[in-house]
Amino acid sequence: MAEVRPIRWRKGRLELLDQRKLPAREVVVELGGARDTARAIRSMVVRGAPAIGVTAAFGLVLASRRFRSGRLAEDFEKAAAILEAARPTAVNLHWAIVRLRETMQAQPDGVSVRALTRALETEAKRIMADDIDVNRRLGAFGAKVVGRGGDVITHCNAGALATAGYGTAVGVIRSAWESGRRFRVFAGETRPFLQGARLTAWELKKLRIPVTLMTDGMTGHLLKSGRVGSVVVGTDRTAANGDVANKIGTYQIAVLADRHRVPFYVAAPTSSIDLDCANGDGIPIEERDPTEVTHIGGRRIAAEGVDVFNPAFDVTPAELVTGIITEEGLVRGDYRKGLARAVKKAEARRRRAG
Amino acid sequence: MAEVRPIRWRKGRLELLDQRKLPAREVVVELGGARDTARAIRSMVVRGAPAIGVTAAFGLVLASRRFRSGRLAEDFEKAAAILEAARPTAVNLHWAIVRLRETMQAQPDGVSVRALTRALETEAKRIMADDIDVNRRLGAFGAKVVGRGGDVITHCNAGALATAGYGTAVGVIRSAWESGRRFRVFAGETRPFLQGARLTAWELKKLRIPVTLMTDGMTGHLLKSGRVGSVVVGTDRTAANGDVANKIGTYQIAVLADRHRVPFYVAAPTSSIDLDCANGDGIPIEERDPTEVTHIGGRRIAAEGVDVFNPAFDVTPAELVTGIITEEGLVRGDYRKGLARAVKKAEARRRRAG
Repeated sequence: MAEVRPIRWRKGRLELLDQRKLPAREVVVELGGARDTARAIRSMVVRGAPAIGVTAAFGLVLASRRFRSGRLAEDFEKAAAILEAARPTAVNLHWAIVRLRETMQAQPDGVSVRALTRALETEAKRIMADDIDVNRRLGAFGAKVVGRGGDVITHCNAGALATAGYGTAVGVIRSAWESGRRFRVFAGETRPFLQGARLTAWELKKLRIPVTLMTDGMTGHLLKSGRVGSVVVGTDRTAANGDVANKIGTYQIAVLADRHRVPFYVAAPTSSIDLDCANGDGIPIEERDPTEVTHIGGRRIAAEGVDVFNPAFDVTPAELVTGIITEEGLVRGDYRKGLARAVKKAEARRRRAG
Repeated sequence: MAEVRPIRWRKGRLELLDQRKLPAREVVVELGGARDTARAIRSMVVRGAPAIGVTAAFGLVLASRRFRSGRLAEDFEKAAAILEAARPTAVNLHWAIVRLRETMQAQPDGVSVRALTRALETEAKRIMADDIDVNRRLGAFGAKVVGRGGDVITHCNAGALATAGYGTAVGVIRSAWESGRRFRVFAGETRPFLQGARLTAWELKKLRIPVTLMTDGMTGHLLKSGRVGSVVVGTDRTAANGDVANKIGTYQIAVLADRHRVPFYVAAPTSSIDLDCANGDGIPIEERDPTEVTHIGGRRIAAEGVDVFNPAFDVTPAELVTGIITEEGLVRGDYRKGLARAVKKAEARRRRAG
């Protein structure tokens, strides 16, 4: 199968697939250092929390080549600050920098710039490999429940493009397909930003998995037809009780799936589970720029001066979620216990590997 | 208030406001005959079941000028077939043609082409005037139940632009507003064709009724907030049992309204009630061109060669409909009886007027 890799690290060079140009063109851009990388993240050349984390890690590796010996820690913090400012809310970005800082701090006194860069590069590669590994394990667990009994609905893009590769919800779909299950994927276009139309449909086509694009208003009608056997989506943040924040439109898909007795699964790497957040009420819903709704591709579609509602996310209550697929297994039933257990297992695994 | 008129018949010329160009520009196009009119209907220069009915009627008047004397019935059926094929779901189109056929059949033997055209023109004008009158009466009945208890959601465009003027669902909203009720209207953008963004938001702004535009994936999240008191939509065809065919996306709004215990009303002039159709299973669902989904404003948004699902309508089962607002009153409870009674009353009214 064709591999979709939004981020490539080749012979010490960082290359990104420019996601703003997809699906019309596959343009690869090469980044030079921290400033360059921060700009690419801010302008959405790369998107999706895990993909942003991996990109930032390699951006720091690039920057480290110009660190001054004797001032390594100081130069590291300068570069880190530039990167962290790019998407201040992206938790994986912060987490990648924390891992590289720990790597730097573990180096012997008087380490050379060259040796530091080598150590940081090793850690960045590990972050990337870990992300793909997490997705593959998550995919294998998801493949046991998704794609059974008919076609599959997904929403937004929780694919290879949003991660270091493979994907979360799309990783599950792919894993189910590779296990021999046969189905068609219905991808909701996901207005206003059209991640489903632009990215998910493109990825699935590359993977040669049958995909049909639909608008977000067609979900109910499709479910009514009886041909759908499961829904799988990603998540931006999942609360301790199993309430799921994800791209706007997810909540209503869950309500519709419930009405038609179609199981609704969430692909949630443990890194996206926030045990400090008791339930969905604690998840802030970001309102985005009205022009995302009034314009498409720079072209105005609505009357001038019309008010706009543009929440970026919504919260699906745990009661509508059939199961949460993590890299440590499928969690269902008592989410409070099950999610805490999955997070603990993932932490233990990282400690053993570290 | 500013009046919006999508169809004008002036000195024997048929002019349409090109709705594909709205809201950016107000362009008027003139039509020549049946083929021209069918093309305008198919390509959505004019849309909305009642507006299509009125347009088709005038299209037949234009066509009738070229009928061959002695072959009037034959030529009528040729033109009628061209028009009927333009939008199969729109029952008003069929009904307008039935009215003109009856007019033709009521003419004396050996009627001249000129006299026939005159008679058809009189009837087409009556269809247009009746439509506005029907909408006003329907609006007054709807105003008693819509706009209470919070904001209003509507979908697609069942406004003046979808009718000869005033509107059905938007007519109800307008009538409720004029009666002094205060609320905000949330208009779903209605992909793929964006009638909500392009037309409804524009109409309501013209009427100075507060309107907020949202994408179709935001309905569930909005209803969850508790601020919505009622939903009102139009219909392309309503079956004898109260099953409602309307723009794709309507069904899922009804499911979401039901979950949040928000009343869901359908503004259905009796002309859109098809008593010959026992239930929603008998309503043909038109599949439209995939490029409506893969492109926006002529610009490709999805990958080349992606399959597309593009049903133009869906069916909302009667059990999810709180009430059907007709020009003869609000029908609720036993739809089979209530709708038959409303249609009978409307027929009696037309006979008295005729």
